[in-house]
Amino acid sequence: MIVEILAIGTELLLGQIVNSNATQIGERLADAGLEHYQQTVVGDNDARIVAAITAACSRADAVIITGGLGPTQDDLTREAMARAAGVELVFDEEQADRLRERWKLRGRVMPDSNLQQAERPAGSTLIANPKGTAPGIRMRIGDTWVIALPGVPAEMIPMLETNVIPFLRGDDRSVVASRLIRTWGESESAVAEMLGDLYDASSNPTIAFLASGGEIKVRITAKAATQVEATELIAPVETTIRDRLGTLIFGADGDTIEVVVLKALEERGWTLGTAESATGGLVAGRITSVPGSSRAFRGSIVAYATDVKESALGVPADMIAAYGVVSEPVGVAMAEGARSVLGTDVALGLTGSAGPDPQEQPVGTIVIAVATPDGTRVRTFRMPGDRERVRTFATTASLQLIRLSLQGVEWGTG
Amino acid sequence: MIVEILAIGTELLLGQIVNSNATQIGERLADAGLEHYQQTVVGDNDARIVAAITAACSRADAVIITGGLGPTQDDLTREAMARAAGVELVFDEEQADRLRERWKLRGRVMPDSNLQQAERPAGSTLIANPKGTAPGIRMRIGDTWVIALPGVPAEMIPMLETNVIPFLRGDDRSVVASRLIRTWGESESAVAEMLGDLYDASSNPTIAFLASGGEIKVRITAKAATQVEATELIAPVETTIRDRLGTLIFGADGDTIEVVVLKALEERGWTLGTAESATGGLVAGRITSVPGSSRAFRGSIVAYATDVKESALGVPADMIAAYGVVSEPVGVAMAEGARSVLGTDVALGLTGSAGPDPQEQPVGTIVIAVATPDGTRVRTFRMPGDRERVRTFATTASLQLIRLSLQGVEWGTG
Repeated sequence: MIVEILAIGTELLLGQIVNSNATQIGERLADAGLEHYQQTVVGDNDARIVAAITAACSRADAVIITGGLGPTQDDLTREAMARAAGVELVFDEEQADRLRERWKLRGRVMPDSNLQQAERPAGSTLIANPKGTAPGIRMRIGDTWVIALPGVPAEMIPMLETNVIPFLRGDDRSVVASRLIRTWGESESAVAEMLGDLYDASSNPTIAFLASGGEIKVRITAKAATQVEATELIAPVETTIRDRLGTLIFGADGDTIEVVVLKALEERGWTLGTAESATGGLVAGRITSVPGSSRAFRGSIVAYATDVKESALGVPADMIAAYGVVSEPVGVAMAEGARSVLGTDVALGLTGSAGPDPQEQPVGTIVIAVATPDGTRVRTFRMPGDRERVRTFATTASLQLIRLSLQGVEWGTG
Repeated sequence: MIVEILAIGTELLLGQIVNSNATQIGERLADAGLEHYQQTVVGDNDARIVAAITAACSRADAVIITGGLGPTQDDLTREAMARAAGVELVFDEEQADRLRERWKLRGRVMPDSNLQQAERPAGSTLIANPKGTAPGIRMRIGDTWVIALPGVPAEMIPMLETNVIPFLRGDDRSVVASRLIRTWGESESAVAEMLGDLYDASSNPTIAFLASGGEIKVRITAKAATQVEATELIAPVETTIRDRLGTLIFGADGDTIEVVVLKALEERGWTLGTAESATGGLVAGRITSVPGSSRAFRGSIVAYATDVKESALGVPADMIAAYGVVSEPVGVAMAEGARSVLGTDVALGLTGSAGPDPQEQPVGTIVIAVATPDGTRVRTFRMPGDRERVRTFATTASLQLIRLSLQGVEWGTG
């Protein structure tokens, strides 16, 4: 089964957005063991979409189209699929009812133009879109399956995972299993060096490295006849990696650092609060992205202005005068202030200089303190990159240091 | 001059990296007024690269290839260009000398395999690469210019800007200008309907719609002999769009809503604070993403636990008991509490039920209140989608309602 990806949207050609959909789909095709040799992008132009569909059908067994299913005049995928297949568009009454129902639930009147989202090429099947109004479309053109999905990633990916990938795999019952080991604290090249011999020797399972947001992930992927066999191939490699990387590892698969932190808090029956300056609420935002976080997370004081650090967190004014607002004593006082003001067992204190202009300390200086019932620890980082990168890395580092504090592990100085 | 982009690399197909090169090139082609209708990605496979070059040459006047110029066995672009053109590879002695010189300067001995970077198709011209070892290659295949550049963005982009774009533009001195109008408050289809006649009539300038994060953007693009003429083509269309969309419009081009809010605050000499529950700090996080936000933004109280709303913001316990925590009175009390505790002129109060489990009110219920020196307004939304989407849309809506309050515009009920 050879699959191609065709992304539709003039905004992609103009460089206004990155084609992250192709990346996301490519990764999932690889995980599913489906071959994938080519990706194409064309703009919102009827003739060129038809030509691209026709060309892809001549090369592939399946074509996944993203985009062009919206309700406006420049959403042309439905029509182009019909033209490429040489069939008419038909109006799907059931889908029209679903659209009207959806708008009614939101208490709004549906503009008539949205009814084009109830059209589909004759002979096609609609694919349910639980997160949006545009359903996907699947049809046969010649010997090729052509499958159109919405361009919005939050809608597209669940449809891909629950419907399209299983459909394309069909009767292929070989199993691709993978395990994602999540680490923090060393660079990608350092992790790659620690596992260099495993990487060189790997064929089944394979191992791969992935860096994002300050974390390094190691993916182990195995293919076998059954899930049990694939898992058995992965297990010894995972054991070796765990032996070598130790406390650098904070979780596996879907265990994001915020999930790991919340789980560790709940195990102890402890609560968490944060006091943030340079990250401006991003740590609290990450933690509260997890459903059920209210069981352990109580709140945050974002003390952006210096005098709010004094009034809302009780950081002494003379301490700020003596050490500066970006300093370890202030970070510690913020953590301990948050612990007391928010009434939590554990609290973060974060102050720093995110840039672009330095604030007392050079851009990228981030002080992170964590107060627990066992005491308070603090560490100063010098983080590379621009404002956005510094804030992202500071957020990740904060969550990681909370995790290490809960586990009773040394913070290191790297 | 119609240009296509062909990116080469198996890592792109596997989803290990995003094709940001295509985005970067697309943006620069658009700025230069060069037409660009299609992008292709293929892996490190000789036959498929040759086929992709041949197909692109049949459609375009110029093909920009990225990647596959390195010194390893899977760098196949040089050979594939030669095969597509039906010529031999020749060894370029001058380039070999430059390579040896470069390695010598770094005090290292060049591995022999690197000499393949001195090969080029017969009849081609090398393009200097000031930042790396792999030169670019330009040659004619049929009626099409085929131009290969390295895949490393830091090497590719300077070569594109200083050599390739000027070469492709040739004697063309025409200019492309575009204007992005940013709106909030109506759906994409409603905005498209309000501008339907303009869209249908548009050729130069053209208009296009773009939806992201709850905002709808309208892009006007014009091509003319000079910047002044292009701007003159855009102006009357922009005026008509502004007349029709009115206060739905919050900014143009790079004016994100957080930038617009901070500008409006600074004009009045006012400060801002937030009290957040369901968004958990995301509004503060968005505002503080803007450099210099500390001039107007003082801080946030993320009151996630109910009793923190009482202790940190002074929301009366009997009000919460009477109306519930997700209610307009509590939203108002949070905004007014934040205004007082943080000592600001303007404050947001946000409470709601982001899901997946309902909290008092159905999932997606979001109460937003804004307190200013002129009084406090409040509105309840029912937002669609999952937790992540509700939180993102609630963050955007909060910033928009702060903007409307500062502008003295009615909030509406849509």
